[in-house]
Amino acid sequence: MTSNSEYYMFGPHKIHKNFIFYATNLSYVMVNLRPVRPGHVLVIPKRMVKRFVDLKGEEVCDLWLTAQLIGAKLELFHNASSLTLNLQDGPKAGQTVPHVHIHVIPRKACDFKRNDDIYDAMNENDRELSKQHIDMEEERKDRGFEEMKEEAHHYTKLFF
Amino acid sequence: MTSNSEYYMFGPHKIHKNFIFYATNLSYVMVNLRPVRPGHVLVIPKRMVKRFVDLKGEEVCDLWLTAQLIGAKLELFHNASSLTLNLQDGPKAGQTVPHVHIHVIPRKACDFKRNDDIYDAMNENDRELSKQHIDMEEERKDRGFEEMKEEAHHYTKLFF
Repeated sequence: MTSNSEYYMFGPHKIHKNFIFYATNLSYVMVNLRPVRPGHVLVIPKRMVKRFVDLKGEEVCDLWLTAQLIGAKLELFHNASSLTLNLQDGPKAGQTVPHVHIHVIPRKACDFKRNDDIYDAMNENDRELSKQHIDMEEERKDRGFEEMKEEAHHYTKLFF
Repeated sequence: MTSNSEYYMFGPHKIHKNFIFYATNLSYVMVNLRPVRPGHVLVIPKRMVKRFVDLKGEEVCDLWLTAQLIGAKLELFHNASSLTLNLQDGPKAGQTVPHVHIHVIPRKACDFKRNDDIYDAMNENDRELSKQHIDMEEERKDRGFEEMKEEAHHYTKLFF
């Protein structure tokens, strides 16, 4: 995204800047269409590459330093005590959007019946995004999108 | 681990250097006690910290650059086509050994009945390590440990 454009690309999807609450020169962070738990966000390299191995060294560093920062902020904000950080790198690992992305999810005691049910929920979220071919552009006025804008707006304040 | 010592620490566990097949100044990589699939290894910062947020910037970069390199090598070595990279950051996210570690697991089509069953298997592996209080020291001569030494030895060759 250049300074003038209105969205970032996430694989084939257009993500309007209203859903993005943090960005560096190389990475950005978006709220989720269907968060599996409060604070479930995606950390994404600006350059669209399919696989983790395709990222340059500086992109790898920036991506994970961003995930570290965002995770700490959101864990605190949501009164959580742990984080799930997951990178499904390639379709056989469950990746449905062909653009590297890290799931960052604040975790609390007993937030899922079985601790690992979170991965099923996470993939359901990805599948839904892929199935619906949703472009998270400003023109859409679904209630969900308004909520997402508001969530992103709240998170933006964490970085002042 | 200093250049003279025989092991690294992984939380409370001593990991003999024979089970470590790659190391940088800040990170090391070990074969697994109970790999859930061939090539399932752990990438670990040398400095023992519990949470991802506790790592310094240079440690974060080194850890994930190491995971990127190792993942690419092992995916190729095991004729896989994807990777699961997972960081259970804190006990409520399923972390059982209180020392940051990334699970890197080469993935293939249908390697688990349900794609996400891998996370159950992964945690079972962690629980087992924690329960048994196993120190992976040279003195132990279990067949499993011999196999692990051999596996680590094979992987070491990938980096010549």
